[in-house]
This record gives sequence, structure tokens and C-alpha cells, in this order.
Amino acid sequence: MSKLFGKRSIKAGLPPGTLMHVGAEKVEKVKITVLDYDEQHFEDKETESIDDCAPFRDKPTVTWINIDGIHQMDIIEKMGSCFGVHPLVLEDIVHTGQRPKIEDFGNYIYVVLKMLYRGNDEGEIEAEQVSMILSESFVITFQEKEGDVFDPIRQRIKQNKGRIRKMGADYLAYSLIDAIVDNYFVVLEKFGEHIESLEEELLTEPASRTLPEIHDLKRGALFLRKSVWPLREVISGLERGESSLFKKSTLIYLRDIYDHTIQIIDTIETSRDLLSGMLDTYLSITSNRMNEVMKVLTIIATIFIPLTFIAGIYGMNFKYMPELESRWAYPGVLLVMLAVGIVMLFYFRRKKWL
Amino acid sequence: MSKLFGKRSIKAGLPPGTLMHVGAEKVEKVKITVLDYDEQHFEDKETESIDDCAPFRDKPTVTWINIDGIHQMDIIEKMGSCFGVHPLVLEDIVHTGQRPKIEDFGNYIYVVLKMLYRGNDEGEIEAEQVSMILSESFVITFQEKEGDVFDPIRQRIKQNKGRIRKMGADYLAYSLIDAIVDNYFVVLEKFGEHIESLEEELLTEPASRTLPEIHDLKRGALFLRKSVWPLREVISGLERGESSLFKKSTLIYLRDIYDHTIQIIDTIETSRDLLSGMLDTYLSITSNRMNEVMKVLTIIATIFIPLTFIAGIYGMNFKYMPELESRWAYPGVLLVMLAVGIVMLFYFRRKKWL
Amino acid sequence: MSKLFGKRSIKAGLPPGTLMHVGAEKVEKVKITVLDYDEQHFEDKETESIDDCAPFRDKPTVTWINIDGIHQMDIIEKMGSCFGVHPLVLEDIVHTGQRPKIEDFGNYIYVVLKMLYRGNDEGEIEAEQVSMILSESFVITFQEKEGDVFDPIRQRIKQNKGRIRKMGADYLAYSLIDAIVDNYFVVLEKFGEHIESLEEELLTEPASRTLPEIHDLKRGALFLRKSVWPLREVISGLERGESSLFKKSTLIYLRDIYDHTIQIIDTIETSRDLLSGMLDTYLSITSNRMNEVMKVLTIIATIFIPLTFIAGIYGMNFKYMPELESRWAYPGVLLVMLAVGIVMLFYFRRKKWL
Amino acid sequence: MSKLFGKRSIKAGLPPGTLMHVGAEKVEKVKITVLDYDEQHFEDKETESIDDCAPFRDKPTVTWINIDGIHQMDIIEKMGSCFGVHPLVLEDIVHTGQRPKIEDFGNYIYVVLKMLYRGNDEGEIEAEQVSMILSESFVITFQEKEGDVFDPIRQRIKQNKGRIRKMGADYLAYSLIDAIVDNYFVVLEKFGEHIESLEEELLTEPASRTLPEIHDLKRGALFLRKSVWPLREVISGLERGESSLFKKSTLIYLRDIYDHTIQIIDTIETSRDLLSGMLDTYLSITSNRMNEVMKVLTIIATIFIPLTFIAGIYGMNFKYMPELESRWAYPGVLLVMLAVGIVMLFYFRRKKWL
Amino acid sequence: MSKLFGKRSIKAGLPPGTLMHVGAEKVEKVKITVLDYDEQHFEDKETESIDDCAPFRDKPTVTWINIDGIHQMDIIEKMGSCFGVHPLVLEDIVHTGQRPKIEDFGNYIYVVLKMLYRGNDEGEIEAEQVSMILSESFVITFQEKEGDVFDPIRQRIKQNKGRIRKMGADYLAYSLIDAIVDNYFVVLEKFGEHIESLEEELLTEPASRTLPEIHDLKRGALFLRKSVWPLREVISGLERGESSLFKKSTLIYLRDIYDHTIQIIDTIETSRDLLSGMLDTYLSITSNRMNEVMKVLTIIATIFIPLTFIAGIYGMNFKYMPELESRWAYPGVLLVMLAVGIVMLFYFRRKKWL
Repeated sequence: MSKLFGKRSIKAGLPPGTLMHVGAEKVEKVKITVLDYDEQHFEDKETESIDDCAPFRDKPTVTWINIDGIHQMDIIEKMGSCFGVHPLVLEDIVHTGQRPKIEDFGNYIYVVLKMLYRGNDEGEIEAEQVSMILSESFVITFQEKEGDVFDPIRQRIKQNKGRIRKMGADYLAYSLIDAIVDNYFVVLEKFGEHIESLEEELLTEPASRTLPEIHDLKRGALFLRKSVWPLREVISGLERGESSLFKKSTLIYLRDIYDHTIQIIDTIETSRDLLSGMLDTYLSITSNRMNEVMKVLTIIATIFIPLTFIAGIYGMNFKYMPELESRWAYPGVLLVMLAVGIVMLFYFRRKKWL
Repeated sequence: MSKLFGKRSIKAGLPPGTLMHVGAEKVEKVKITVLDYDEQHFEDKETESIDDCAPFRDKPTVTWINIDGIHQMDIIEKMGSCFGVHPLVLEDIVHTGQRPKIEDFGNYIYVVLKMLYRGNDEGEIEAEQVSMILSESFVITFQEKEGDVFDPIRQRIKQNKGRIRKMGADYLAYSLIDAIVDNYFVVLEKFGEHIESLEEELLTEPASRTLPEIHDLKRGALFLRKSVWPLREVISGLERGESSLFKKSTLIYLRDIYDHTIQIIDTIETSRDLLSGMLDTYLSITSNRMNEVMKVLTIIATIFIPLTFIAGIYGMNFKYMPELESRWAYPGVLLVMLAVGIVMLFYFRRKKWL
Repeated sequence: MSKLFGKRSIKAGLPPGTLMHVGAEKVEKVKITVLDYDEQHFEDKETESIDDCAPFRDKPTVTWINIDGIHQMDIIEKMGSCFGVHPLVLEDIVHTGQRPKIEDFGNYIYVVLKMLYRGNDEGEIEAEQVSMILSESFVITFQEKEGDVFDPIRQRIKQNKGRIRKMGADYLAYSLIDAIVDNYFVVLEKFGEHIESLEEELLTEPASRTLPEIHDLKRGALFLRKSVWPLREVISGLERGESSLFKKSTLIYLRDIYDHTIQIIDTIETSRDLLSGMLDTYLSITSNRMNEVMKVLTIIATIFIPLTFIAGIYGMNFKYMPELESRWAYPGVLLVMLAVGIVMLFYFRRKKWL
Repeated sequence: MSKLFGKRSIKAGLPPGTLMHVGAEKVEKVKITVLDYDEQHFEDKETESIDDCAPFRDKPTVTWINIDGIHQMDIIEKMGSCFGVHPLVLEDIVHTGQRPKIEDFGNYIYVVLKMLYRGNDEGEIEAEQVSMILSESFVITFQEKEGDVFDPIRQRIKQNKGRIRKMGADYLAYSLIDAIVDNYFVVLEKFGEHIESLEEELLTEPASRTLPEIHDLKRGALFLRKSVWPLREVISGLERGESSLFKKSTLIYLRDIYDHTIQIIDTIETSRDLLSGMLDTYLSITSNRMNEVMKVLTIIATIFIPLTFIAGIYGMNFKYMPELESRWAYPGVLLVMLAVGIVMLFYFRRKKWL
Repeated sequence: MSKLFGKRSIKAGLPPGTLMHVGAEKVEKVKITVLDYDEQHFEDKETESIDDCAPFRDKPTVTWINIDGIHQMDIIEKMGSCFGVHPLVLEDIVHTGQRPKIEDFGNYIYVVLKMLYRGNDEGEIEAEQVSMILSESFVITFQEKEGDVFDPIRQRIKQNKGRIRKMGADYLAYSLIDAIVDNYFVVLEKFGEHIESLEEELLTEPASRTLPEIHDLKRGALFLRKSVWPLREVISGLERGESSLFKKSTLIYLRDIYDHTIQIIDTIETSRDLLSGMLDTYLSITSNRMNEVMKVLTIIATIFIPLTFIAGIYGMNFKYMPELESRWAYPGVLLVMLAVGIVMLFYFRRKKWL
């Protein structure tokens, strides 16, 4: 419902920093997962209370706290006061209508991203808000519901695959963003396949449902665009290396994500171009078919209307119609009719209507 | 009337700084409300004369003077000379055709914004001009008529909710701008709902009033755009922190408004894209329906025109038409007609017109 | 004639700085008016020779020389040599195909603007070129013909209204530009009213002349745009205060003009958007009406063509048509026809064509 | 042939700096003209060998070498080695598919421009490549064929008109570029006249050839745009005064050319806008006319089809049709027919179809 | 398949730097060619193992290693560790979905380009990814399959033609990029010819396959654009001379490529403009033809429908129709019919429908 217009109005009039969950409640119970690791050591913990996370705050090891579910204000608030997060950030975390953005608070960075997935059976694209707080030694992520996009990273940490256990919290943050951006490709490819199969259908046998489908896909592309465009600024903001939280060795990886982002935007723009080209083609095909129909009508009508008129003349009941008496009148009239028909067919052929 | 073109011409030829109210008189009597507060103290006063406001000018407490109604030139002039406001600013305050802008005069900042609301019964969007003068210790706001957008802030000050009583005049100015911008979301969501319900209607059962409605919404989006685009420059001008009147602690809040502004502009652009997509779809649907109609006409006509011609032939009154005498001629002709009809139906089916 | 394409070609091949009047001769005799004033003193003089102006050149008072008519090369040349103006500037002054621009020559600034007015009876917008040379103590203006746009300023100087007599030549230049820009609003509002009345007409009863009128207005908007867009650069060039000829106290007034220019450009862009929206709507309305017409044709034809066919059958003259003998055949056939007609009407109603 | 796509591919695979003429051979024999002058002295010489030019290289006087015809590689090569020109520049000179550009090699500047002219009888616009090498004391120009655009300058030098003999090689280069740019106005005005006459025709009596003409003009505008847009960069590159070869006194003249370039681009963009507006209008007019035709068809058909049906009924040969016997039946039926026709006409009038 | 949307998703979830070939396997066996040369010396070697290349790494001569086929991970990996290439670069080399880009790693530069060629029989344009690693003394190129674009350069080195043997590795890199970019012209010219022949066909005899062809070409232009646009950034990145690997003497050659790139982009944009103009024209032509068809139908129908009605009247079987008895009734009615027909023809002629 109203994916493209959001729901920000219910907060109008409230003082800034007022925590209020805006969005659907996608999960019943908030789930907090803590992962604490360095090269040698690894700890894994599931909890429901922020208090269990506090001890990790000042440890030198990398700590990743993942919170699934953002509708319980007390948990968010406690988390905020425990880790020293600005109230405006907390407000944004629980408000799912954010535009992807990055805010640098010196000792921590706040990043909002959209995670895309194909929601219902018709494969409509939906978005989930993921917030991330990156500090020197910990990363806190907030998701609207449990997801499996971060699972491979969890596995990589657990099994000490790749270089993730050797690197700091900034590399962890990079890995999480990378996982989200990589997931865009999955969604985009399905989207692209949908477009291309529709294009195929369009050129071979356009049906009446082609048009609403193009319309839906255009809407989808609009939604994708709205979700992805700001991403570029976010990643380029990170990549420019203005924050000291990102080490130089990680910046090269961010450049990689930036390339991916550009590619994603490219693909979305290409989709839009394709879709508007498809609409033009659809209109032309429709008008061509209409033309075909009209031509048949014209040919039939223009041939038979004059013939019927001739028949009508000799159907008149005048007393003195000398032709009627003649023995050869009937076959003669039939021949005349035939001749008129043939002349017309030649005319149409010359006009290239046949 | 003429919302998109304004009414500036009547001032052509007058010297700059000439005060002249341009716009509708939306309120009968000018109402001046003064709020004076600091953390401990709070004072609330309603008056009709600027003289009552003068004493507050040099007090160290935060003073908010709100003026509802800008058509009485003497009040504005007195206010200007009392608080040292440049004549060009006064001219802009009473002229409701301003574009949102910000002007920095060193010791005070002049901000013009548009407050949006849904005016008449049909929910057409209208705009009211709000001017704001922010100085070290006071904020003066000018509205065309009494509104309730500022009420929550008045309540927050009165009841000492949030941090507003602890902060200075710049935070008050921020809160007022925030209230205006938050109100945009209310208007935009209604607008978005209107678009989406029309879109629904378009795809299910387009009526003849769909077209003028799309046209009206496009016009509305144009109006919104004209009102909101300059806002970005205004807020970003404030946020860049070039004026010393805004304290650093307030700048982070301005960044928040800036984010909202970007979101609003995003939504308006999305609306425009949606609406022009809707027009395309409308045209296609219309042309599809026409096609349908034409096909039925063609089928009926192309089947019956030749048959009528055959009937016409045997309706001729020639004396020597041997077929007429035959016993099986009539059923034979009927069979021929049936055959012609069936052949044609097959032809249409093969052409996919049925 | 050829408003959008100009007439520059006749000068091809001439050396730069060659004076040659390009444009219509809109006035018979060149008229030179001199106004010389400071706070105490005021002098007013009308002449036909530049020699009378020379004495004012080095006076410390502000001198405004206004020249109506630019087709007499000798006057322009004399003026140029007397006041030390670069030959390229003189060339531009007498060539009415200039684009609004500003050129800073250190000790004087050359400004070209377009003055808009509604020319003929049909209210077509036309442009007149106004050149202005601003120096430390004098302003020289060149108009193609006598106009009344500068009259209010002349009055203000004469009657010592406002601050104009207290300020220098830069303020005079500002006042003149302001008068021209203010006059744009007059033209634009008429233009806007024309658009809105056409829009009204379009949605209520589009006539066949609506289309050429939209086309004309689009052309008009194109012309306005071409005349006004460069203005922004001109004013912003002045406002940025790069020239020392403009005092700081005048710059704030230039900012005011700049705001107006932005507003004018905004309005023109809005007009263009409106007009292209109107064309879309016009096309849709036209196609809707066509649809209506087609539906009526289809309904009439599809109902009566089969009925006529039935009548045709019983109009055949076969000898052995047993139905013809039956007493109830005629009313029976009539009932069948009625039934066929009613079934068809129901079909159309179900298809929503009625 | 293939004006818009060029012919660069035949050089693929050759090492850079390989001289190879690409383009049509527009002249039979290469012609070299040398003009050598300063304020007092003037020398004029026509030759076929570069060797005759070498002595002028190091003379302090201004030397202008003009080469008509660029298809003889040996001449170009000799010229290059004699005047110390980079091989890549030589390659560009003989390859007519260049985009207008400027390259600064320190001691000389290489400029490529397009000279426009109306080629064949139908007035199609064509382009010729003009290369120019400007050094401290000489200017070398390369044209594809002899042209008369530079003639006025040759005359001015010969007759010592204007300031050209008093100025250096940079002023000569400016004069040549100015001659080319001035010539654009000639071409553009013809083009504009063509557009406007077509516009006139479009609104009064659109013919079937209007459409391909609009298409051709759009193609022409595309070609003009492609030739002129890069010119802006070229001139602004020169005007910014980065090269020491242009003296300050000449820069003001370059600014003049820059203004002209902007004006030319403006005009081309206006043409494009006009042309796409004309296509829209053409489509609308076409659809309007169709509408007209359809309405006539509908009116005739809907009036006569039911009437013919009525006649058909009384043409049936049933034995028992009591009406047939009645004396007043025939005039009665005629009256009914008349009534039906009149009712329909009223209906159409109410629907505004008449 | 899916040229416009790529295939990146299968890598989602893998750690960065994981080598995995993405794309079609276009060659069976990887082929490695080594060219080692300086001014005096030249060595040429074909191998299948990277080990054979290692010795060339530290030689001062210029070494060019060309690898055809990128689907064998072990070879790429070995190459990477041998020449010290970053894992992310290796990942990009084997993943054919890259966007053209340049990455500067200080001691080497990584460049990705697209090589275009006309793939199948219908001349559809396809792209192959070419990666290049440029270091102080060697260049490594990776192609998806063996190609002949680099052959001329190989020949030039072997035969010591041009200056290539005298220059360093940077000039070799330039030559290779130049070869790729030059090849674009070949593809673009074929593409342009296709467009122009279709345009010719469109204006002379548009067929039903014209529309899908325009659609295909638009898609092709979209693909070209996607492949070429990023090239500009790549080349301009190189040309700006930020990397010390490119010597100053080579930069001038890069500027030459940059010019070519701009020209290519220009041509693609021109193609897009042409193609969308062609679609408009196609639609107009189609609608014009429809108009023609309709007019014929209307003329035939409006002439004969009333005549048939008249005939119908006198076909009625009323007993008392006095006209039927008259001797001159029949020829009279025929004359009336003739008159009606002629009047109508005049009417149509006046309406300009004939």
C-alpha cells in the first residue's frame, strides 16, 4: 500500500527526537543477536535485552549487534542511551520512511539503506529499511524483520573464511553493505527478466494485459529508482574517506561497492528507457492492428456497398423499367457487378492496401 | 484564481520598498501574539499593537512574536522601524507572491516559506505565505491568517515539553520551520492517495472524468513543485551554517529538515512521473477500447454486407432469372449465406480478431 | 516577422565595429532626453544633438541620457567618441538582435536587455532592445522607440520621491532595470491569463481553433524564454558585485531584482509545462470524442445491418419460399427483429458502450 | 551521404600520425595562397609548393597561408615538417570527420571548425572542415575547397581597411573565425525561414509532404547542432585567454564571437523546439481532420441505415402485410422516415457533432 | 541473452575477492602470448602457463602478455600472485559484467573496456570485455576470446613500424586502447548505415517490419550507450595525467583518443535522436495512411448509402405508390440519384477530401 508515498504525516507536530514506530510490524518479537570476535576468539549470543550487549561496548574486539524488529521503543531507547546515539538517529531508525543516507557524528557513523526483496507471489518488489551504526569497535544493525541476507557473513565470521576475522569493524560494515548491494542484483535480474519476457511477448503477440503490465513495471522501476539513487551518494560519501572510522585498506573495497552501485543505477535507467520504448512500440503495434482491421472493413464495404446499390436499383417496383424485360439483362448486370468488384480490387492493390 | 501566475504587475512602476499588500485578505483583524520564555520563566500575551512588543526586543529571553494578517500596512511598518528591518524585507512580507527564499542581513535572517493546506471541498492544494525574521533573541512570524500548524509548538513551550525551553531563538526558528515542513507530508500523502486511487480507477474502469482529473493533478503537482523546490535551497542555505545566528547544536536539526525536504521533492517528482505515466496509460487504454469497438463493427459489417448483397441480387425484378423458379434455390441461397458467414468467422478467428 | 530567428546575416563579412542598424525603424526622429540631478538640484532637457550632452559628462551630478531611436549612425558614433565607448559596444547598440548580456569594461558597464510588450491587437508579445551604459556619474540608455516604462522613474526623480535623488548613478541604473523587469510581470500575467482561459475552454468546450492557439502560445513561451533566460546571468553578474561601479548599498536591491528574475523564469517554465500538458489533454479529449462518435456509429450499424439483412431475405423473389404464405410470418419476423435488436443493446450495455 | 555518421573506420588499425585523406575530394588541384603584411607593407602570392612559403616562417610580419584542398598528402607533410606541426595535427587536418576543437601546443594553437553552406538545390545544409594553425607571426588555414567566406578579409588586408593591418596574427585568426561564425547566421536564417514557411503551411493547409519535410528539417537541426555545439567550447577555450598567443586587446573581440556562438546555439535549440512542436501540431491536425471525416461518415450512416431498414421491411414479399394495402401507408412511412431523420439531426446537433 | 541486464546475482553472498568466472565460455583453451621488445630487440612467444611469463616481469624491456580466455581460475590466480595484482582486480577480470572503468593502484593501473563487434548474422552488436593491467614495464591484456583487433599492433611491433618500439609500456597501452576505440567506429558506421537505410525505407515504403526494426535499433543504441558512456570517464581519467605511469609524451595521444570517444558518444546520441524521430515519423505516416483509407471508405459509403436508401424506397411493395406508374419515374429517379452523387462529390472536393 502506498509504497511510493510513505507515511510521515502522523508525526507532524511532535517534537524532534520523539521515538515512534512508523511502518508495518513485520515481526512479533524483537530478536537481538550479538557476535563478538577477533582473529583468535569468537562469541555468539542471542538475547532479548539490551543489557546483555552493554559489556561488549568497550571491548577492543569487533562486536556486531543485530536487532531484528524495530517496533519496541523501549529497546531502541535503551540501546541509544547505552551506546550514546543521538535521539534524532533513534527517531530515524524506528521510522521506516527514510531515504538512504549517511550521517557522520565523529565517533560513529549512521547509515540507512533499503534492502530490496520480491514480496508477494506476483513478484512485486518491496523494500525493508536497514539501519547501521558503525563505531570504532562495534557495528549495530537494525532490520524490520529477520532476513537471510546477512547469513553468509555470519557464516564467514563463524568459520573464519576470507579476511573478515582479521579486519576491524569497518570491514564488517563494508561486508554488510556489500551483502545488501549484492542482493540488489538478484532483484534487478528478476526484474530485467520480467521486462525482457514482456518485450518478447510484446513483439510476438501483444495481449490486452500487456499494457497494465508495462504500467506496473514502470511503477516498479520508479520505486527501484527512488530506493537506489540515494545509495550512490551514501556509498560515495563513505568512499571519499572523510570519516576516520574507515581504514584506508577498506576504502578500496568501498570503491568496489561504488562501482556496483553505478552499475545498478545504470541498469535501472536502462530499464526505464526500455519500458518507455516498449510503451511506444505497444502503441504503434496497436495502431497498426487497428489499421489492418480498418482496411478489411474498407475493402469489404467499398466493394459491396456499390454492388448492393445496383441490386437495389433493379429491385425497384417501377412499372416502366425496360431493362427488366430483356433476356440478357440479369446476366449482364451480374457481369457489370463482377467488373466493378474487380476494378476496385485492382485499385486497392495499386494503393497497396492488399 | 491564477495560482500559478501570481499578481505582481500592479506594483510595476512603484519605487522599491513601497509597502503594498498583494494577495487576498484572508483575515479581518490583525492579531499579534507574543510568547516570551526562558528555562524558568514563561509569558504569554495577545495584543493588537506593535507598541506592546517593543519592550521584549532587548530582553535576553527568547521572544516569539506571531502576526496573523499582513494587510495592515501601518502595523508592518511600525514593526519594521521598531525591530530595524530593511524596507525591502517589509515589502516582501506583505507581498504574498514571494518565492521561498532566505536572506541574511547579518544581525537577522529573513526567511519566506509557503505553508500548504488543502483548501476547498475538492481538496485542491493552496499555499499561504509565512515570513520569519530570526534575530539573536527573538523570532517574528507573519501569517496570512490564523493557522493551527504552530499550535503544537506553542503547547510545547507552554508545557515545557522537549528541549525547546532550554534552547535559544534559533531552535525556536527551527521548530517553526520543521512544523511547516512536517505539514507538507500531510498534504503530500493526501495528494498521493488521490493519485493512487485514480490510478486504481484508471486500470479498472476509466471514465471520461479520469482525463480532466489527471490534468488537474498534473497542475497540482506543478504547483507543489513550484512551492517546494526553492525550499531546498532555503534549508540548505541555513544548514550550511553560514549565519552565526544558528548555533552548532541546532545545525544537526536543520540537517534533519533538509533530509525531509529532499524526501518531499523526491515524492513530488515521483508524482509527476506517475502522472505522466498515467496519461500514457490512459491514452493506450482509450485506444485499446476504440480498437475493440472497431473490431465489433468490422465483424458485423463484413459478415452482413456481402450477405445483404446476395439477398439484394435475388430481390431484383428481372423477368428472366431462372434460379428464382427452382424449388431448391431458396434453401440453397440460405446455405450459401451460412457458408459465407462461417468462412468469414474463421478468417477473423485466424486473424485473432475474435 | 521571424522574431525567433533574427537578422544577423546581412552583416557577414563586415569588419568588427562597423556600425549598421539592424532591425525595424520604429521611430522617425531620434530624441535625446537629458536628466541631471543630485539631492538639491534637478535639470531636465530635450535635445537632438549629442553635443548638448557632452558638458554633463564630467559633472559630479548624476546624469541620465536617454536616446529614443537607434537608426541614426552619426548620433551613436558621436555619442561613442564623446563618452569613450568601445566600437564593439556601439555595434551591439544599433544591432537589435542582441541576446541580453552584460559586459564590464572597467570604467563603464554595458548592459543589453529586452523590454517586452504586447504588440498588435491579438496580444502577441514583442520585444524591444534596451541598451544601457553605466559609468561613475552617468547612465546612457538606448531604446528603439519612445516608451513609457521609464516614466515613473522620471517622475520619481523630478518629484524627489523615494531615495533616488540621494543615491548615485548605480541606483539609477538599478531603478531602470527594475522598471524593465517589473514590466515583465505585466506581460507574463496577461500571458498567463491567456493560457488559463484557454485551459478553461479546453476542458469545457474544445474548438478547432484551440489547437493553433496552443501552438501559438507555445511559440510565445519559446520567445519569452529566449528573451528572459539570459537575463538571469545578467542580473546575477551584476549582483555578484564584481564591478566597483555598483556600491554595496545598491547590491541588496539587485538581489531583489534577481529574485524577481528567478520568479519570472519559474513562471515561464510553468507556462511551458502547462502548455505541453494542455496539448496532451487536447489530444486525449479529441481522441475521446472520436471514440464517442465511433461508438454511436457502431451501435447503429451493428443493430441495423443484421436487421436489414433479414428484411433483405424476405425481399427475395424466389418462387418457393413457404414462409411468405404463412399468416403469422410477417409479425413473427418483426418480433425476431425486435429480439435481435434488444439482445444487441444488452450486449452493448454489458460492454459498457452505452 | 551519411553526413551524420562519418567515415572513420577505414583508418582502424593504422598507427597514430598516419596521414590519410578521409572525405570527398572537392577540388582538383591544391592551391596555396600567401599573404604577408604589416602596417606599411603588403605582399600577395599564389603558389603550388610549400617551399615558397618557408621563407615567410621567421619573418616578423604577419603571414597568412591559405591551402585550398587537403587531399595531397605530400603537401601537408611538407608543410608540417617545415612549420613544426605535430603529426597528430596533420592527421586531423586531412581527416574531414573532426569535431570542432582547439588544441594548444604552446608555441602554436590548432583549431578545427566547420564551415556551413547550403549545398544542393534543395538547400540541404552541408559542412566543410576548416583547420587553422595560429603561431606568433603566421596563420595557416586549410579548406577542403576554395570558398569565398574569407574574401572580405583578404580585401580588408589588401585595402588596409579597419584595424587588421595594425594588429598581429592573433587578430587575423580572430577575423577568420569571425568570418566563419558570421556565415553561420546566413545559413541559420535560411533554415529559420524554411521552418517558418513550413509552419505557416502547416497551420493553413498541411499537405502529405509536410511530414517528410518536418522530418528532414529535424535531421538538419540535428546536423547543425552536432556542428555548432562544440564550437562553444572552442571559442570559450580561446576567450578564457589561456594561450599567450592571443593578446589582451584581441580577447574582447573573441568575447564578441562567443556571444554570437551562444546566439547561434540558442537559435538551433529554438529550431528544435519549434520543429518538435510542429510535429505535435501536425499530428493533432491530422487527427482532427480524421475526426471530421469520421463525423460525416457517422452522420450519413446513422441517418440512412435505419431508414434503409424501414424501406427494407416494406420490401418484403410476405402475403399478409396489412399495411401494404392501406392508401395512406406509403406517405405515412415517408413521414415516419422524415421524422426519424430529423430526430437524429437534432441529436447530433445537441452532441455538437454538427 | 539478457545483454542489458547482466548476471551478477550468482555471486551474492560470496566474500569479496572470490574468483568466479561469470559469462559465456567463448574459447576452449586459454592461450597466452608474450611479446617482449625494446628498440633493438624483439621476442615472441606462445605458451599455456603463467610460469613462462614470470621471467619477463622484472626485465627493463617492454613486455606485453595477452591472455585469451578468462574462464580458468588457476591461471588468473597465478598471474595475480606473480605480478602482484589485487584480488579485487582479479575478481573483476573474470567477471564479464564490468562497466568500463579505470583504477589506479599506484604501481599499476587496471583498465576495463568493452570491445564491440557485430555478432550474429543479423548484425546484432555484442560486447566482449577486455581488461588491461599497465605497469612500468609490462602490459597484461585479458580477452574473452581470440580477436584480431590487436593484430595490427602486433604487426607494428614485429616490423618496427611507427614509433611503437621506441616508446615504453604506456605507449603500448595507449595503442591497444586506440585499437579498441578505433574499432568502435567500424561498428558504429555499420549501425549508422542500418539506421539510414531504415530511414530511407520508412519515408518511401514503410512495411510492418519497420516498427520492430526501429525498436531493435533503439535497443541497440541503448546497449551501445551503456557500453560507451563510461569510456569517456576512463579516457579522461587517463588523459588528465594523474598517474605517473603515463609519460607526458603519451598524454597527447590520449587526448586524441579522448576526442574520438567524444565523437563516438556524439554519434550514439545522434542515433538515438534519429531513432526517436523515426518512430514519430512512423507513427505519423501510419496515421496518415489510415486517414487515406478512412477517406475512401467515407466517400464510397456517404455517396452510396443515401442512393441505396432511395432505391429501397421504390422497392417497397405498397399498393398505392403513384410514382411507380409514371412512365418517367424510373429515369427521373436515376437522374435524382446521379444529382445526389455529384453534389456529394463536389462537397468532398470543397472539403479537400479528394
